[in-house]
Amino acid sequence: MKLKEIAKSLGLELVGDGELEITGVSSLEDARKGEIAPLYRKAFEKLVGSSRASAFLVGPDTRLAGKNLLVSKNPRADLIRLIKLFHPEEPRREGIASTAVIHPTARIGKGVYIGDFVKIGENAVVGDGVEIHAGTVIYHDVEIGSRTKIYSNVVIREGTRIGEGCIIHPGVVIGCDGFGFEAGEKIPQVGGVLVGDDVEIGANTVIDRAALGYTKIGTGVKIGNLCLIAHGTRIGEGSMFAGMIAIGGSARIGKGVICGGMVGIRDNLEVGDGAIIAAKTCVFRPVAPGEVVGGCPNTNLTRWKRAMARLYRLGKKGKDKE
Amino acid sequence: MKLKEIAKSLGLELVGDGELEITGVSSLEDARKGEIAPLYRKAFEKLVGSSRASAFLVGPDTRLAGKNLLVSKNPRADLIRLIKLFHPEEPRREGIASTAVIHPTARIGKGVYIGDFVKIGENAVVGDGVEIHAGTVIYHDVEIGSRTKIYSNVVIREGTRIGEGCIIHPGVVIGCDGFGFEAGEKIPQVGGVLVGDDVEIGANTVIDRAALGYTKIGTGVKIGNLCLIAHGTRIGEGSMFAGMIAIGGSARIGKGVICGGMVGIRDNLEVGDGAIIAAKTCVFRPVAPGEVVGGCPNTNLTRWKRAMARLYRLGKKGKDKE
Amino acid sequence: MKLKEIAKSLGLELVGDGELEITGVSSLEDARKGEIAPLYRKAFEKLVGSSRASAFLVGPDTRLAGKNLLVSKNPRADLIRLIKLFHPEEPRREGIASTAVIHPTARIGKGVYIGDFVKIGENAVVGDGVEIHAGTVIYHDVEIGSRTKIYSNVVIREGTRIGEGCIIHPGVVIGCDGFGFEAGEKIPQVGGVLVGDDVEIGANTVIDRAALGYTKIGTGVKIGNLCLIAHGTRIGEGSMFAGMIAIGGSARIGKGVICGGMVGIRDNLEVGDGAIIAAKTCVFRPVAPGEVVGGCPNTNLTRWKRAMARLYRLGKKGKDKE
Repeated sequence: MKLKEIAKSLGLELVGDGELEITGVSSLEDARKGEIAPLYRKAFEKLVGSSRASAFLVGPDTRLAGKNLLVSKNPRADLIRLIKLFHPEEPRREGIASTAVIHPTARIGKGVYIGDFVKIGENAVVGDGVEIHAGTVIYHDVEIGSRTKIYSNVVIREGTRIGEGCIIHPGVVIGCDGFGFEAGEKIPQVGGVLVGDDVEIGANTVIDRAALGYTKIGTGVKIGNLCLIAHGTRIGEGSMFAGMIAIGGSARIGKGVICGGMVGIRDNLEVGDGAIIAAKTCVFRPVAPGEVVGGCPNTNLTRWKRAMARLYRLGKKGKDKE
Repeated sequence: MKLKEIAKSLGLELVGDGELEITGVSSLEDARKGEIAPLYRKAFEKLVGSSRASAFLVGPDTRLAGKNLLVSKNPRADLIRLIKLFHPEEPRREGIASTAVIHPTARIGKGVYIGDFVKIGENAVVGDGVEIHAGTVIYHDVEIGSRTKIYSNVVIREGTRIGEGCIIHPGVVIGCDGFGFEAGEKIPQVGGVLVGDDVEIGANTVIDRAALGYTKIGTGVKIGNLCLIAHGTRIGEGSMFAGMIAIGGSARIGKGVICGGMVGIRDNLEVGDGAIIAAKTCVFRPVAPGEVVGGCPNTNLTRWKRAMARLYRLGKKGKDKE
Repeated sequence: MKLKEIAKSLGLELVGDGELEITGVSSLEDARKGEIAPLYRKAFEKLVGSSRASAFLVGPDTRLAGKNLLVSKNPRADLIRLIKLFHPEEPRREGIASTAVIHPTARIGKGVYIGDFVKIGENAVVGDGVEIHAGTVIYHDVEIGSRTKIYSNVVIREGTRIGEGCIIHPGVVIGCDGFGFEAGEKIPQVGGVLVGDDVEIGANTVIDRAALGYTKIGTGVKIGNLCLIAHGTRIGEGSMFAGMIAIGGSARIGKGVICGGMVGIRDNLEVGDGAIIAAKTCVFRPVAPGEVVGGCPNTNLTRWKRAMARLYRLGKKGKDKE
């Protein structure tokens, strides 16, 4: 595809040689001749000199002398469209492997893919167009909404309900018992898990079933890898959690919350709609709607940064004896 | 079951309409008409107004005007008994799936369940009444005590010994090599893992085998999801670890220790019996028996809280130039 | 084997009874009569009195009255040789299980072991002497270098390339989608993962594929259990990461970096060659080559320790009103 054709197709400003033949999109460092690479982080401009990319997708403020550019007002959004030009979505898989073991009472929709060594239990319901890859185990009475894609070696315990169009990455566990004991005795975990539509759940993440009632993951929620959502927690629509976060039991997380990696949120706490939680924060106290927090324990992010700067000045050698 | 019958069965004080027909137990927010919900956290009293529960299990200090109540001196313990009234334990599964691959030298007890795609290696010993769910892999020479329940897609490496009545949640790995290198060369990890009786291990948790000798998990220990117990660590009886904690190699953890989520404990450290470790603590120094610690590095919990409060006051805007 | 024979074989100084018959090597606490145990940590000398070991491998500065000793200038390195005397490497497994499902287009090398319920996809390439244990899923177009050992229930997504002589522990996921969204829309993750030779990857660790280009793990890198390497990150040769660390997307980690457990490294950051990062550090700012850092956010490790000591003095009770 010629660079000018891409520019036209995506509605972007073209700088340089429109006749250039573009063969793919890659990163600045990995691009080969003929490929186009995105460049919208100032810090990465130093990599342009050594990049073999033949053209660059840039933001409105970037001008690179002598380079072929596609200039976008919103390069992050246009990158998605650019990638899709060269990587049309993989066709959904279809068919049921002969080695899969599906209980006769399970209801399997149309156009479904069920891979090798998949086990599907009694009364499970698998919607139309669902993919379940090799080695995944679906316990009894699980419901999976249409077009949901479940990668390999996932485990979904009994009674869990998953919405439509979800993506569940390898090694995820949903619906396992929460950590509940009273004086050393196990509190039976008899609740369930409800996962909304368009939820994405990262590899090896664990979502506990509620002790009573439901653990609820709202529509459009995105959860990174190796996260832990404990029993009875509720997460509002569209909230996003980077990798390796842990949320304690019965926490109430609002809508549109953005949460950096390695954050811990104490059980039974509330985090308001639209809150932003910096990476590694210890959320030991409630977070108000729209609040921006960091630190351990959590406080206003700016206050935390200022406090740490002062603390580290205390740590300077010359000040050790003051 | 009538509310008065439940009260009688559990020995609880009844307030309100004893003739009420109760159909189940659920959470405050998820309960439907006819269900009873627990309410023993002050913070949750505000949810009573919108709850559709027909009755509430409360502590001795809670009085809700016009509501049907079961009043308990120990509502957390009585909740377990209440749940068990409505949810008698699932009958243990029995039978061996035709797709399981069991080495002929393995010794399999009576009344065992072995699910689809389970692999059991040479000389493994599986006790009476054990459940091993679909997709789990038991390497050679593993011993599993009677009545232990192992969920799906668990991996137990060679030589590991698991006690009786344990619960091992999906995705757990036990007996993998520890992280041991000397000048870039791998230190052979030739030790094993001994897990006591009545141990519960959360989903996707990893317990390394010792380099030499044994990693030991004491009887009655409870470990949450996504935890890491490194090689050669020893944990005393009845200690409890919430989710996503990591314990370095050859640490010595006492009996009855309680450890919050996301705690890290440095290798080769000692934590005394009955110590309490707050969530997110960095245990870089030994913890004395009965000590209550928090912070990074660990210190007395109260001291840490006081220090952080002072630090954050320093971070207030007006004080930036003091 | 007699103690004097071991001393001669390893070139170590012998103290005590060379005629002693040694039957194995174990830890101080688990050794039985006839076994030899290593002792090169001062803190463990107190365990010698109760140890049943018949001999000890010690460093040059340790003298234990009346004990049989092998004295080494480098006891950690000699321990490896001692272990190997008693535990010759397990012979590599060979053979292909009848339950494995291997796509006819996959190319399988010589002397390969493929365990039960292994799935290998279209056009995958498995090198000579590779072991793939039960329950592992290899997606299409994956390449695995010779002598690499992959334990059970691993998932390797399409297009990933793994080098020679690697060890991949149970439950690892490689090549899953990274966490990339723009205004709630998923950024297609169309890059790959390149893993060098002699890399070891701990149980349940997750390595994302790049959005574009490659996530790169250099030769000789060692990664602990439950780690997260996000999309597009590059790690230089020989770097080592203890358990439960997380590295954000597109980070650039140098060669020979040493990183303690539970460290988080922000996306897009650079960490220079030979840097040392203490356990639990929040790396929110770049780390220079050779720098030694700790704290949250990261700073010079000594400065951090000094600052925390001062802070905790502030937290002492008597100083609360100053």
